Amino acid sequence: MREDDEVSAAGGATREDRRRDPSRVLALTDGVFAIIITLLVLDIYVPELSRHETLQSAISDVRPSFVSFVIAFIVAAMQWTGHRDLFTLIRYTDRGIIWLNLLTLFAVCLLPFGSALLSRYSEDPLALRLFGLILMATSVTRTAIWAYATQRPSLVHEPLDRASIRSGLALSVFPLLVYIAAFAIAAVSPQASLTVYASAPVLYFITITLLRWLAPRGSAEREFT
Amino acid sequence: MREDDEVSAAGGATREDRRRDPSRVLALTDGVFAIIITLLVLDIYVPELSRHETLQSAISDVRPSFVSFVIAFIVAAMQWTGHRDLFTLIRYTDRGIIWLNLLTLFAVCLLPFGSALLSRYSEDPLALRLFGLILMATSVTRTAIWAYATQRPSLVHEPLDRASIRSGLALSVFPLLVYIAAFAIAAVSPQASLTVYASAPVLYFITITLLRWLAPRGSAEREFT
Amino acid sequence: MREDDEVSAAGGATREDRRRDPSRVLALTDGVFAIIITLLVLDIYVPELSRHETLQSAISDVRPSFVSFVIAFIVAAMQWTGHRDLFTLIRYTDRGIIWLNLLTLFAVCLLPFGSALLSRYSEDPLALRLFGLILMATSVTRTAIWAYATQRPSLVHEPLDRASIRSGLALSVFPLLVYIAAFAIAAVSPQASLTVYASAPVLYFITITLLRWLAPRGSAEREFT
Amino acid sequence: MREDDEVSAAGGATREDRRRDPSRVLALTDGVFAIIITLLVLDIYVPELSRHETLQSAISDVRPSFVSFVIAFIVAAMQWTGHRDLFTLIRYTDRGIIWLNLLTLFAVCLLPFGSALLSRYSEDPLALRLFGLILMATSVTRTAIWAYATQRPSLVHEPLDRASIRSGLALSVFPLLVYIAAFAIAAVSPQASLTVYASAPVLYFITITLLRWLAPRGSAEREFT
Repeated sequence: MREDDEVSAAGGATREDRRRDPSRVLALTDGVFAIIITLLVLDIYVPELSRHETLQSAISDVRPSFVSFVIAFIVAAMQWTGHRDLFTLIRYTDRGIIWLNLLTLFAVCLLPFGSALLSRYSEDPLALRLFGLILMATSVTRTAIWAYATQRPSLVHEPLDRASIRSGLALSVFPLLVYIAAFAIAAVSPQASLTVYASAPVLYFITITLLRWLAPRGSAEREFT
Repeated sequence: MREDDEVSAAGGATREDRRRDPSRVLALTDGVFAIIITLLVLDIYVPELSRHETLQSAISDVRPSFVSFVIAFIVAAMQWTGHRDLFTLIRYTDRGIIWLNLLTLFAVCLLPFGSALLSRYSEDPLALRLFGLILMATSVTRTAIWAYATQRPSLVHEPLDRASIRSGLALSVFPLLVYIAAFAIAAVSPQASLTVYASAPVLYFITITLLRWLAPRGSAEREFT
Repeated sequence: MREDDEVSAAGGATREDRRRDPSRVLALTDGVFAIIITLLVLDIYVPELSRHETLQSAISDVRPSFVSFVIAFIVAAMQWTGHRDLFTLIRYTDRGIIWLNLLTLFAVCLLPFGSALLSRYSEDPLALRLFGLILMATSVTRTAIWAYATQRPSLVHEPLDRASIRSGLALSVFPLLVYIAAFAIAAVSPQASLTVYASAPVLYFITITLLRWLAPRGSAEREFT
Repeated sequence: MREDDEVSAAGGATREDRRRDPSRVLALTDGVFAIIITLLVLDIYVPELSRHETLQSAISDVRPSFVSFVIAFIVAAMQWTGHRDLFTLIRYTDRGIIWLNLLTLFAVCLLPFGSALLSRYSEDPLALRLFGLILMATSVTRTAIWAYATQRPSLVHEPLDRASIRSGLALSVFPLLVYIAAFAIAAVSPQASLTVYASAPVLYFITITLLRWLAPRGSAEREFT
């Protein structure tokens, strides 16, 4: 096994190993995330001043798009740290992981559209629901990768124990429930729905912090970012 | 040989090896694909509401560009997995591979234009044909890399047997035939042409699944994504 | 220890090591910087000629956006070299470093907006102040990473001596002071404020050159870019 | 020395080695090139049809921007292969190389603006000259890196012999001369100037092919892409 690893490092791995190597999957994913978080800023436009208008008053029009930029940046950043945590456990990729990962990227790619829509029509139930659907898609695909990989010992570095698998699933499913709640109340109270979306990252952050704190030393949960 | 590999891993390879190293070719390619699939979303614009219009009715205008985004995303994702499969076989690059790869990127870069054109004029034979030409270009260049590399044992990890070379060629040529068919019927029936373009990925997916299933264990076809 | 390193190189590291590996953090960061410096050019628009206008006279309208491109490019380039210098000292990442780094990227992502605003309203105190706030945010986050990492010997390659830690802090805090000065005088004299922003990179460059020159051989300061 | 290399591969290099490691410089550069060649396509806009206009007639308006895309793509691709060739010789970076490389990226980043300007005003001497200036900047900076690195044996893998240094310089200076010629005749004959710009890549390609053919086996020139 030592021998194998060395050969692998030197690029002389078997065809099987090369095919299952996750490095290009990660390169594509990091590239997409880098572009997404940078594109989000393009929605913050420089205001045009009409006659007798000062920049001071015009700049307040930029506020909604700035708020939407902040929310979408945090969402994308959390998706990325979650993706990174996930792939520290995954040693090899197969056809299933690659396509599930492309589905994740598909959902992530829609984030700039969702956040632009929300920044424009933040009171509209439809905009709130579409934004929610995109967030749900990111959560569902991530949960799917987690479930898929942890069921296949040949794909992970070390098989995870039951408790860790369940914590990981809970962590992926948890934001999904929050998004469903925000989606459900969008028609009744757009204001409350928006508040739930905005507080989701905070809840998520607290949940991870708790998980890290409660989990036994050496378990996978301790290492979530 | 072990000795050589170790030196290579440590960056002390010969000048010949460094020149033939594919890593920067892959970095550029992954970067281009990451940008392409992210740029595609820019065609999905946030609708402006005219007076008395609701977002509900305005959002239906976004549907064509969303459909075109989905098609182009799938096409780009398949190009990328195909490129990844191809380069798990290729060990070294030379001038030919680098320029053929740049030609592939040239065709891939035109995808956002083609998909924007199609989303705008999905009934127009000319739009359908230009989209078809771009898809054909991606297939032709990929077939060319496959043919070029498999003819040169010094460029691949292990020489492929005849059957694998032929399967790989068939897999590259197959979408080309589908695109030519869609191109040919564009003037007669735009609707049918669009349907063929949309179903090409599905056919391709099925073909790979069959190839993986039929191929003898250990052959290159088993490892297509 | 040799044994450990080899295993690490071959991808067989412990889960702890994989989680702390900075490679994906660097990939994301390099991607964001590459996009930022490229997006900046999008603000240099090709002029539309009105009737009887020559390109010669129209091109002069492009000058402010070109100047703003040059300033923002230099700022982004310096942020990147500073980030690279910083991460040649850091061996491992933890949750704190990852989120501080994402905060840095957040500030860096706002640079294109800030520079577009400045190129449009270069005489307006508010534009000058917002540009200043973005620059301050990049400096503050970078200072925070420096302070955070140098306090934790387990995260750096070799623990730094007191003098080096102080030089590094000074180097991060120094531009902050310059930006605060430019921010403060923006309302009194926009012209002077702009001059201070433009000369900040020059001052920074001179400071590093002096630090490299004065620092004892082998200290971290000698290696700043 | 073998010992050193292994430690380097395993991430346990000395601080000096880490500072001089070119990997992040290459990551940034590949990212910028990937974005540049992808952004170029954004200048090919989907035509809006006015009343009674067919797509057939409208698409001919797209031709100039397509031609400019092709030229700029080829220029960027050649810059990238040239950069790759250059950095197969360079083992270590220092402050000079990093800033010269950032200057190269600065010039490369202006390519989309130059090509958009040219596609719009292809008959205007000023547009031709500005495009020429950008191309000259890319050549000058690349020549500077070549001259800088080949003078410093500590930065390259193996010291180059005099003949190879001169060939490399000639290869970098040669396009510069072509661009200066096109720049000079821009006012007299815009048509001729455009032709010279368009044929520069062809001339360059032929020159490299000749150099590869004429150079003695094992010299650096044989390995130009």
